[in-house]
Amino acid sequence: MKRTPVLAAAGVLAAALELTGAGSPAFAGGPQYNDKAQLLFPANYREWIFLSSGLGMNYGPLAAKEGEDPNFDNVFVEPSAYRGFLQTGRWPDQTMLVIEVRASQSKGSINKAGHYQGEVQGTEVEVKDEQRFPGKWAFFTHQNGAAVAKLRPTSDQCYSCHAEHGAVDNTFVQFYPTLLSVAKEKGTLK
Amino acid sequence: MKRTPVLAAAGVLAAALELTGAGSPAFAGGPQYNDKAQLLFPANYREWIFLSSGLGMNYGPLAAKEGEDPNFDNVFVEPSAYRGFLQTGRWPDQTMLVIEVRASQSKGSINKAGHYQGEVQGTEVEVKDEQRFPGKWAFFTHQNGAAVAKLRPTSDQCYSCHAEHGAVDNTFVQFYPTLLSVAKEKGTLK
Repeated sequence: MKRTPVLAAAGVLAAALELTGAGSPAFAGGPQYNDKAQLLFPANYREWIFLSSGLGMNYGPLAAKEGEDPNFDNVFVEPSAYRGFLQTGRWPDQTMLVIEVRASQSKGSINKAGHYQGEVQGTEVEVKDEQRFPGKWAFFTHQNGAAVAKLRPTSDQCYSCHAEHGAVDNTFVQFYPTLLSVAKEKGTLK
Repeated sequence: MKRTPVLAAAGVLAAALELTGAGSPAFAGGPQYNDKAQLLFPANYREWIFLSSGLGMNYGPLAAKEGEDPNFDNVFVEPSAYRGFLQTGRWPDQTMLVIEVRASQSKGSINKAGHYQGEVQGTEVEVKDEQRFPGKWAFFTHQNGAAVAKLRPTSDQCYSCHAEHGAVDNTFVQFYPTLLSVAKEKGTLK
């Protein structure tokens, strides 16, 4: 099929958008809600920018599980928010981060030591929406497979802990090595 | 400034490409080499698709370090190769994967248990280039800050180990949970 240059450009654009997860709420660059004030869960978050992973850290949402096979925490940020942070060392309005908690396993295939990642145990979304939330940031809990994530009440510990201990603007940049160096350079560390 | 629709579309395209790392060898979708047969290192690999992270696994390139603070391994794949895998359960020609080895730390900020990620200890690139390499795949070692990565000889253990134990086509998909389910569904697991 012969394509005009305009259509060809549209095809390239579509391909590029597909790579960044267009078609989901995510690529729009910010959070979307339903009429019950629930967050539409950004199902393509695994195609966002990976920030870091921890194993058995004891401050996460499902951190209680300790012992031989503690959980991994993977953190992802929506790409346009990431780009904003690289430029300024701060999170733009409409930033979304997802923390994905995964089970760990040790023995399997050729691996005999350490831990690798298993199934998702839960996900949480942190959202910066300055007009919508009095504290600018809010936390949402997501259950596997659900289309939406539910707002956590501001009495939950995550609000006070992030506000008090987050190295940059309510987020634990101290645990994200590639952003930590940006924040140091931009002078935005708390 | 008033923008015509065509220019606006071009701006969106530019923004989308920027998000996927255009301008680097990476977005071209495949490996590039210099005249010494070294691989141009895809410096933006942190903006690729994250596959998984392990801690202290004992089959990686820098796995010898054991003890209290073992290394993390983060694995990333170039986005168009990822998209190809989602569709077919196989790696297209020109696939590139990066394994990034990072130090781990345990005590810091509010964290009192488990491990989080520190500085990069080394990176390796695995490349599928069917015309260039007799075994289709090759491994390259990268030193921090270098513009290129050097080809490892086929006598290195990585070649035989990946060929023998990789669950899909020379890669350890058994340790990448989001791809493992795709390979199962597509019937491409070894």
